[in-house]
Amino acid sequence: MSWNTNVLVGQSGGPTAAINSSLAGVFDTARSLGAGVLGMRYGIEGLFEDKLIDLDSELGDPVNVQLLRQTPSSYLGSCRYKLPSPDQDEEPYERLFRLFRERQIGAVFYIGGNDSMDTIAKLSAYGARENSSIRFIGIPKTIDNDLEGTDHTPGYGSAAKFIATSVAEIGRDSSVYDLKNVTFIEIMGRNTGWLAGSSCLASQRNAICPDLILLPESPVSEDALTTRIAELLDQMKSVVVAVSEGARRPDGTLMCEQPTSAMKKDAFGHEAALSGTSRYLASLTADRLGVKTRAVEFSTLQRCANHLASAVDLDEAYALGGAGVRAAYVGFTGKMSAIHRVYDQPYVTEYRLVDIADVANKERKVPADWIREDGMGVTEDFMRYVRPLVTGEVTPLYVGGVPHHVAMLTKGR
Amino acid sequence: MSWNTNVLVGQSGGPTAAINSSLAGVFDTARSLGAGVLGMRYGIEGLFEDKLIDLDSELGDPVNVQLLRQTPSSYLGSCRYKLPSPDQDEEPYERLFRLFRERQIGAVFYIGGNDSMDTIAKLSAYGARENSSIRFIGIPKTIDNDLEGTDHTPGYGSAAKFIATSVAEIGRDSSVYDLKNVTFIEIMGRNTGWLAGSSCLASQRNAICPDLILLPESPVSEDALTTRIAELLDQMKSVVVAVSEGARRPDGTLMCEQPTSAMKKDAFGHEAALSGTSRYLASLTADRLGVKTRAVEFSTLQRCANHLASAVDLDEAYALGGAGVRAAYVGFTGKMSAIHRVYDQPYVTEYRLVDIADVANKERKVPADWIREDGMGVTEDFMRYVRPLVTGEVTPLYVGGVPHHVAMLTKGR
Repeated sequence: MSWNTNVLVGQSGGPTAAINSSLAGVFDTARSLGAGVLGMRYGIEGLFEDKLIDLDSELGDPVNVQLLRQTPSSYLGSCRYKLPSPDQDEEPYERLFRLFRERQIGAVFYIGGNDSMDTIAKLSAYGARENSSIRFIGIPKTIDNDLEGTDHTPGYGSAAKFIATSVAEIGRDSSVYDLKNVTFIEIMGRNTGWLAGSSCLASQRNAICPDLILLPESPVSEDALTTRIAELLDQMKSVVVAVSEGARRPDGTLMCEQPTSAMKKDAFGHEAALSGTSRYLASLTADRLGVKTRAVEFSTLQRCANHLASAVDLDEAYALGGAGVRAAYVGFTGKMSAIHRVYDQPYVTEYRLVDIADVANKERKVPADWIREDGMGVTEDFMRYVRPLVTGEVTPLYVGGVPHHVAMLTKGR
Repeated sequence: MSWNTNVLVGQSGGPTAAINSSLAGVFDTARSLGAGVLGMRYGIEGLFEDKLIDLDSELGDPVNVQLLRQTPSSYLGSCRYKLPSPDQDEEPYERLFRLFRERQIGAVFYIGGNDSMDTIAKLSAYGARENSSIRFIGIPKTIDNDLEGTDHTPGYGSAAKFIATSVAEIGRDSSVYDLKNVTFIEIMGRNTGWLAGSSCLASQRNAICPDLILLPESPVSEDALTTRIAELLDQMKSVVVAVSEGARRPDGTLMCEQPTSAMKKDAFGHEAALSGTSRYLASLTADRLGVKTRAVEFSTLQRCANHLASAVDLDEAYALGGAGVRAAYVGFTGKMSAIHRVYDQPYVTEYRLVDIADVANKERKVPADWIREDGMGVTEDFMRYVRPLVTGEVTPLYVGGVPHHVAMLTKGR
């Protein structure tokens, strides 16, 4: 039996190491069911400008699909765009559904995070109202791991593997000289500490690293932090602090917010972006404790380091893409494919469908009882949760010593 | 025939991904010749405090030696210490040679860069003056690749492999949205552009990346740079600039030096360290061209990313350590083991000895004719030089999904 239709797939929100693996899962599964596969360039935003490509011709060679799975960032391009409510403005929906009809689209798959699930929720609700037969399915993706309805999100495991590995390496690097020092490593996560928390996996044998972890869910005052660091420096030479970019004070302000400080604006009068947390804390600690400090920011490296992707993560991303297509094929709409964990150890999961309305616009935080009692670290429960997600390695195709990626869609980027 | 003596080995200067592989080469070779192996903790500086360890017991298990080769940073610890001239102050030499006699040291190996080779030069000269039979041999190491007397230095290839891989990944990441943007990636290298130049290997197929490379050897004005970026933005959406931390203006000042700017000092009145180049250029470009910009600093990640080490680099580091020991064994002193390149392609090298006096305190720069005519890139000759050095991958021992390192020498770091 062949699915005599086209399907449309898009990627949205920030890139990850796994989002292209989900795209590969959608592509392979839809093709195996007989559908043609079209891709949105730059998500829904590009769709409004009719930016579509024929993935059957772009990715026809299975070598390209395999390379796609190992290629960071969003192959199709991405956007940050939120559809208006159809009650307020019906026009975008009319345009999109006209386009879907013209292109004979039977199903739409959107790979993304909270905002993207909002898009799928709105499109499927509008489709139901209009008695459309088009199916709308969300495929989860975000390094932040803050989606409800799924045990975890593709992209998180690979980011966590990069973070744990790099924190372990920097921990060794920071202890090389015979002098007291503190290193602050800044990790993404504006509102949730899933990524910063994953640094707990850097510890091995007699090398506890990091010593402290600051999460947005667990506010800490500068006084409490520097007091704790001073205590640690009495026992050891080198202290490593993993700090979420969204680390905050008990009054709710972000650590990187310093209203009266000269750091607030740069030389050109621009407001400093949300990425000065580690630099602020390094300066503060040097000032208060008189020790050498260093700030390291993982920046976008942590979300695109496919050379160090987690095999579990890429496989799950691929499977969730495929599960979404199968769900649409049998008639579901308004759903997100999701991971249900059966066991931590051995790690066993099942793929399920969840109602998109239970996911969209929600944000899942690190549970309070997974945060250490002193508020500056995570518990064994957190470790048990995250460990299977970083498991397994992917061997990139190295050409000339550098991992090779699928060719870009357009020259000149 | 057995070498009936102890040998002493130390590590000095900044850590690298390969310096422990050289230590493993010294250790294995000295042991195979029958010598006992002592290690200096924290280099010459620790030696003055009698901080020695017995490597035979620490590393007796071959599994530990193999893990050592895959462990970043300096296992023994390091220092930045320059011996005074013996003409000015003989006392440190008398102390050191007394210690050498007490410990029955027949040879001293020092793994490091320019300053460390100065140490070996001074010790060997003093030894010759005193008719000492102790041999002093330097083993090259520095990610900066700025040592004379050797085709390249261990540590450089692994750093280059990390840089090329990460620049390729960030290049993909930066092109994800449909808007004009410029990314500045800051790479180590205060005086030489070997590291920044190695980013040229990130290009593949239709993805040229980075578009521009700024090297300390090739000063560029802000006007010339922003003009060139504006031209590129006319042709493409996303521009990537790899920038050496030591990038400078035609008047010789560093890009990160801004005498009258608010960026000069942080909130605590500290002078900003030499690591604001990319942030400065990102602000400048946003201001002048009105486009989205981002600054990414590789920081210490680039020198300690052993999970992505170059197999050629680690093998050469190991071989140079062993070659140094063999040289001492047959009677040489005041030498550095070095790499002589026979062919680029196929890559063939020989190991040689060079006079330490021809290496110490010198600095090798990128040749002018390896820099592109516009001064903002490198030529095919540079590419041909660096490509073999990033070749081959090392498979870390992953435990729980994270690369495993040799146990640290002391708890609590």
